[in-house]
Amino acid sequence: MQKDRLVRIIGIDPGLRRTGWGVIESDGVRLSYVSSGLITSTSDEELSYRLRELFEGLLGVLSSSKADEAAVEETFVNENPRSTLKLGQARGMALLAPAMRGLRVAEYPPNLIKKAVVGSGHADKRQIQAMVGFLLPKAKFESADEADALAIAICHANHRGAAALARRVLKEEMRG
Amino acid sequence: MQKDRLVRIIGIDPGLRRTGWGVIESDGVRLSYVSSGLITSTSDEELSYRLRELFEGLLGVLSSSKADEAAVEETFVNENPRSTLKLGQARGMALLAPAMRGLRVAEYPPNLIKKAVVGSGHADKRQIQAMVGFLLPKAKFESADEADALAIAICHANHRGAAALARRVLKEEMRG
Repeated sequence: MQKDRLVRIIGIDPGLRRTGWGVIESDGVRLSYVSSGLITSTSDEELSYRLRELFEGLLGVLSSSKADEAAVEETFVNENPRSTLKLGQARGMALLAPAMRGLRVAEYPPNLIKKAVVGSGHADKRQIQAMVGFLLPKAKFESADEADALAIAICHANHRGAAALARRVLKEEMRG
Repeated sequence: MQKDRLVRIIGIDPGLRRTGWGVIESDGVRLSYVSSGLITSTSDEELSYRLRELFEGLLGVLSSSKADEAAVEETFVNENPRSTLKLGQARGMALLAPAMRGLRVAEYPPNLIKKAVVGSGHADKRQIQAMVGFLLPKAKFESADEADALAIAICHANHRGAAALARRVLKEEMRG
């Protein structure tokens, strides 16, 4: 495998109550932990204000972490339409923040993210946390949301080469 | 009815393909049309980029229209969870833009908005467009999304007094 330049990837796990984020660095071969955390919103504030709290928190993290690329999980469409709507609103905010910083935002389905860290499309929260800790030995995280965000970043590190290649090939095909 | 100071209200009808907006002015008794329009996104771009296009368009409208308050329809939860998720994402963006400008964002259920313009909770697109044209004789709009956005603004003009009073009373009650 060829070594690339160092790239910093932020994974984001959006939620209205709390949004997890995790930043890793990849040289194309090795991954290393940079930072991770949780951004929370004030539950008794109105929705627009809570989205602003999360958005500003995320913009701050994007600036301080100097992330080059972002990745977010493709949403699992919930059985409960109200939950789907709530998650959609937080997700809109989470996709927007890196886009406002000029970053591309990749999206991956949940089973591909699980496969990237656990090797199987089916894994529970504890297995994901354990494997994220194994793959990123220096990682310090306390919540499942942070571990999920780091898992999303790991998934992107594994797939970003293929995605960039596909974009290039498709562009050239369209040119004729 | 007592005349208030002039207030500018922006109504927003969010959608990922196109987001309608309409600005009206209210002195507490009379309403007048200020401006309205549509913001569209590039359909073959990735989702995060499209949300950014809509968000930046909306921030521009908020600045140029000098709106004081904002209102958005409470989302009708769709039968189709994929549509609900898409709408949620656009809605997150639409709630965030006025919040980033320091505006409060009121939310109203669809039947209350219809009642405010047509006098009944059940009305079709054509009836809403006709009544918005009647209530705001100077209004120039070409699309149903603009008419819907103006209807949301009209609904807020009718209810903002009651909402502000309720906030005041509840605050004082909490103080004891």
